[in-house]
Amino acid sequence: MPNQAAMPNLTIGQYDMVFNSLSFTIAAMGAAFVFFLLARTTVAYKFQRVLEVGALITGIACYHYVRMFGSWTAAYQHESGSAVYTATNELFHEAYRYADWLLTVPLLLVELVAVLYITQSRRSSLMTKLVIAAVLMIVTGYPGEVSANTTVRLGWGFVSTIPFVYILFVLWTEVGNAMKNESDEVKGWLFSLRLLLLASWGVYPIAYLLPLFNLDPAVALVGKQVGYSIADVVAKPIYGLMIYAIARIKTQQEKAAAPDGALVPHDAPLASSGSAVI
Amino acid sequence: MPNQAAMPNLTIGQYDMVFNSLSFTIAAMGAAFVFFLLARTTVAYKFQRVLEVGALITGIACYHYVRMFGSWTAAYQHESGSAVYTATNELFHEAYRYADWLLTVPLLLVELVAVLYITQSRRSSLMTKLVIAAVLMIVTGYPGEVSANTTVRLGWGFVSTIPFVYILFVLWTEVGNAMKNESDEVKGWLFSLRLLLLASWGVYPIAYLLPLFNLDPAVALVGKQVGYSIADVVAKPIYGLMIYAIARIKTQQEKAAAPDGALVPHDAPLASSGSAVI
Repeated sequence: MPNQAAMPNLTIGQYDMVFNSLSFTIAAMGAAFVFFLLARTTVAYKFQRVLEVGALITGIACYHYVRMFGSWTAAYQHESGSAVYTATNELFHEAYRYADWLLTVPLLLVELVAVLYITQSRRSSLMTKLVIAAVLMIVTGYPGEVSANTTVRLGWGFVSTIPFVYILFVLWTEVGNAMKNESDEVKGWLFSLRLLLLASWGVYPIAYLLPLFNLDPAVALVGKQVGYSIADVVAKPIYGLMIYAIARIKTQQEKAAAPDGALVPHDAPLASSGSAVI
Repeated sequence: MPNQAAMPNLTIGQYDMVFNSLSFTIAAMGAAFVFFLLARTTVAYKFQRVLEVGALITGIACYHYVRMFGSWTAAYQHESGSAVYTATNELFHEAYRYADWLLTVPLLLVELVAVLYITQSRRSSLMTKLVIAAVLMIVTGYPGEVSANTTVRLGWGFVSTIPFVYILFVLWTEVGNAMKNESDEVKGWLFSLRLLLLASWGVYPIAYLLPLFNLDPAVALVGKQVGYSIADVVAKPIYGLMIYAIARIKTQQEKAAAPDGALVPHDAPLASSGSAVI
């Protein structure tokens, strides 16, 4: 019995659905990468790091989707006139997703914590705990993901769910606490962000478990790839845009509160003039 | 007898472990490259060169890992339904690592020396000695690396270890000396940096010697590639992040010490106003 589940035959429509999802995600991630780089100078100096992290996340994801797209097209072939795609000798590399998450999930957590007003000392310990939990979640999820054995998939899936729930619980609580000190406008965005976090993260366990439902293997494969892709688009570029909106509002608020209407770049390393903050 | 050890058959899991390590490292190096470029404007002018060197190191490594990834996928093939990967006619090019180190190890030494407060005259002679030792270490390590002959591997490995130990000894002493003149915060980072240096550099001789332990050739090959990849991620992006943290703290300290709370760009080449330094 092979370590990895065999690739089922796919109809042209099924093959294309994954193909299109992967290509769409490359474009979305690439565009978000450029946008976050351009947008960083439109927020106060102290939020620029948040935008940079958003750019790194989408840039890393763009790379992995380019690789996955190549792996997908190499894993299937189509005979002229045939109604199905059949597997080639090449295996589709699911692992790209896990390598991606290993880098991007810690960064997503850093991105969120950095936009909230949390004191420096609490922030460090919070980030450390969240990053460790994220790494545990991904590392323990992978052996189950690549296994064709139901018990193995369920067992590692269960272990991986513990840090997963922990992270969501901590983020839910922290965002809730942060909301208390924010203006109504920011509060509204944080409320939406919390729902988006739950909705997008909620897709991952469902996609992970899809191969265990008594589905046609082709449907399970396509559902999992499309599901992960949609969840990634929501959890990276759209989530990043919401965080950008919060950073913009906070920038405006700080500017309005400043005596001369200009931003005080109090944590800018250099210059006492506003030139460091564009 | 071939000059290079033949490529052993690998299980899917073994093949994937190297495949995933190489791809993960590409993403990590690429992200670090972008990050160090973005982060350079957040430190005082005199530390911006340190961040630029960090970007060059990770950019060069990203290139070499892209090449190694291509070489790895070309070196192995998978038959449909088979549980093993077998070698193709293409050889895996180990030499990319040595070409990479020949460029990046001198830069890693420059990066560290540049963030320490060492007087200009001592700094030049120190860098010269370290760079010469680094080149000797890499050039003498390579003939042993590509040899399938145990005596040749051990002989060159021994020669290469002399400059290796010399570099670590000099760095250990220099960082120790630098610590005496630093604030507690910087001292803490330098303490960690010294341990990280020892831990990451310590992996290389172990990975180098792996083929000599009486291991299954597949296990030795996979262990060596994964070991080198992890060591490179620690020794380049993570090491660079620690140096960045030190540069940030020193920037804040200089800013606090400046009479008007602004940094005096005393070594900036242009302009006496802060505008040259963003």
